[in-house]
Amino acid sequence: MSSAVDAALIDAALILDRCDELAAVSSSPDHLVRVHLSPEHAAANALVAGWMAEAGLSTWQDAAGNQCGRLEGEMPGLPALLLGSHIDTVPDAGRYDGMLGVLLAIAVAGRVRDAGLRLPFALEVVAFSDEEGTRFGTALLGSRALAGTWNDQWWNLSDAAGITLVEAFQDFGLDPARLPSAFRRPESLVGYLEAHIEQGPFIEDADRSLAVVTSIAGARRFTLALTGHAGHAGGTPYDRRRDALVGASELVVAVERLSIADGTIGTVGRMQAFPGGVNVIPGRAEFSLDLRAEHDADRDECLAHIRSAAAEICARRGLEYTETEIYRADAVPCDADLREVVATGIRSTGDAEPLELYSRAGHDGVAVSAVTGFAMLFVRCAGGVSHHPDESVRAADVAAAVVAFEAAVLAVAERDFTQP
Amino acid sequence: MSSAVDAALIDAALILDRCDELAAVSSSPDHLVRVHLSPEHAAANALVAGWMAEAGLSTWQDAAGNQCGRLEGEMPGLPALLLGSHIDTVPDAGRYDGMLGVLLAIAVAGRVRDAGLRLPFALEVVAFSDEEGTRFGTALLGSRALAGTWNDQWWNLSDAAGITLVEAFQDFGLDPARLPSAFRRPESLVGYLEAHIEQGPFIEDADRSLAVVTSIAGARRFTLALTGHAGHAGGTPYDRRRDALVGASELVVAVERLSIADGTIGTVGRMQAFPGGVNVIPGRAEFSLDLRAEHDADRDECLAHIRSAAAEICARRGLEYTETEIYRADAVPCDADLREVVATGIRSTGDAEPLELYSRAGHDGVAVSAVTGFAMLFVRCAGGVSHHPDESVRAADVAAAVVAFEAAVLAVAERDFTQP
Repeated sequence: MSSAVDAALIDAALILDRCDELAAVSSSPDHLVRVHLSPEHAAANALVAGWMAEAGLSTWQDAAGNQCGRLEGEMPGLPALLLGSHIDTVPDAGRYDGMLGVLLAIAVAGRVRDAGLRLPFALEVVAFSDEEGTRFGTALLGSRALAGTWNDQWWNLSDAAGITLVEAFQDFGLDPARLPSAFRRPESLVGYLEAHIEQGPFIEDADRSLAVVTSIAGARRFTLALTGHAGHAGGTPYDRRRDALVGASELVVAVERLSIADGTIGTVGRMQAFPGGVNVIPGRAEFSLDLRAEHDADRDECLAHIRSAAAEICARRGLEYTETEIYRADAVPCDADLREVVATGIRSTGDAEPLELYSRAGHDGVAVSAVTGFAMLFVRCAGGVSHHPDESVRAADVAAAVVAFEAAVLAVAERDFTQP
Repeated sequence: MSSAVDAALIDAALILDRCDELAAVSSSPDHLVRVHLSPEHAAANALVAGWMAEAGLSTWQDAAGNQCGRLEGEMPGLPALLLGSHIDTVPDAGRYDGMLGVLLAIAVAGRVRDAGLRLPFALEVVAFSDEEGTRFGTALLGSRALAGTWNDQWWNLSDAAGITLVEAFQDFGLDPARLPSAFRRPESLVGYLEAHIEQGPFIEDADRSLAVVTSIAGARRFTLALTGHAGHAGGTPYDRRRDALVGASELVVAVERLSIADGTIGTVGRMQAFPGGVNVIPGRAEFSLDLRAEHDADRDECLAHIRSAAAEICARRGLEYTETEIYRADAVPCDADLREVVATGIRSTGDAEPLELYSRAGHDGVAVSAVTGFAMLFVRCAGGVSHHPDESVRAADVAAAVVAFEAAVLAVAERDFTQP
């Protein structure tokens, strides 16, 4: 471990403490879940704002519920280098996905402030309000508002309780009409850097602490449904059944088989049978499909194979297939200059040849890339486990990330990103 | 059509009207669902009590919420021949499953009263409060109370809203401590006759209106769960996944394959993946299994095969299997004398050689058999469709059922069931 990393263990300990503190802000007493525009979201924003202020940042919550903080550069009003991640979670989440990146960004801003550095740009930290899409099914709502790629149809999205997004904004104390004020003009930004746990095992396999991200995989998400005919579980012979759940089950198995064959990543995370009586043949099954690949063409080819499998199953079982796309993000390459900046950061920790990975997970950079270039620093997580309470990071890796992320920020300063 | 059946078309029309009227008593505006001890259950009991009173029966609601009516025989206080069925429903139900049998029984009691017949037993009509088990997962609660086979552990069963059975009794205005008063002593009963739609296609296939039931299939119901490990849908490679839903899906497909191979009837009616995030590998899948066969040994052999399949899937996928039995009823033969009585009833409609069927569905007779003999009359239903809003019967078949059911009651009178 380099002496710089060693010295950053104090920052790492504080970051990990704060991850624990944020993990307690949950809408469930026995596991972590904190969704967009919930009371827990407000509480988390307040905690983060306090830590931002301690680090010397001026703070505000933008019109999309993103918590922001700003440290001016060598003169007030300069374009800003954005640092950040998100603070919403999946259900039964781990405590580092998103939050670690927010707290690392605050720590680095604090170190810049403490060192009295005068940067040729402002530093801004953003804690994005919605990256996971847990509540409304559509992801990246916070970063899309910032990037000016908001779609007004989203106002009618509703959560499981039937609350629409526009109602949720109002309940949270936000004025939907003011949403456009969250948009950041490209000329006000230098770029976006995000640190995040890898959520995969490749850094661990390579026995490294960190990696530089090359691109973010393209992802598409669907709500799929198979419709057959409900009937009495006792009285209906198999040759007359149109059991939607058995058909859906065949398709779930096919998604795995086809994804492996095509070198893509397909996951069914939700599944429910209707009407749901223990003694009733399911007349309908609704389930999700999350499909990713490094290259969009591979992802879409796998989707075509999945559709063929669905057609075969439906023809054989007398079922009907419907598919609703709820999310689509094509693969996004990281900015070449900012990738090099992150690599420079990693080298400063003593890792001479930084590991390069593409991100199989989506991140806020996908949205932010519409308005400014971005790059990412990945941090090793134990066993590659994420979206699970067992998510875990090592303090030494977090210290290395602090050093690398700060060095990356300083490397941006040397590159004069203020002149396009 | 015999002239007696022709004349009974008026009764049939009234019965079908009343089925429509009961179908409107639903806790959902757009489909029929009426569960045990709900406000709709109380409203349905009140409707049924009114119709019983019109037919000349004295009425009461027993301590289990069963709606009862009694027509005395040639002298007051004689043992009773029970006629009836249930008035609770599955979710998104049809309007004949259960209700048709209750209304047929009231019609027949009314015809006996109108004819001024003096029977050597009382006639009692019972509208059982819970046969489906929709609300609390455990079926036949009404008939088990009547048969004295109540299990006090059931008081702690809870519905989807967390309301326990004991609380539901109190909310309904019933005193749980009085439950034993619903028990009917064997010496107070002559037998139990139930008319019910077939819920299968075999009467239709044979081009008949009615059938006599030989036995009720043994059924076992389980809540099954597979537990793996939740994880990020993007970051976790397939060789490290422990996806509970893909495993469960394989098992759902295996249940169908093994049930067909073993000549049994296995159905998965419920399925849910947890934590349920669209971008999270399911760490747990919970689903139901309903398993029936004419003979218990066949059913249990199929269960052993399903368990073997689960063990293979779990070993291969790193999952854990748990199985909770929530219902078990062994196959129950109908009483031989009462079967002959029902056959006599069917013959009176002009069908010289009544079709015999075993019931693949469970019925209240399973519970009532603990305290008195029972037999059943099945009525054709269109396409064998049941547990679905498309459930439908023909008026002519209902008229035939009125004639057959009345003739069966009179045949009981000729057999002197009052002397054991």
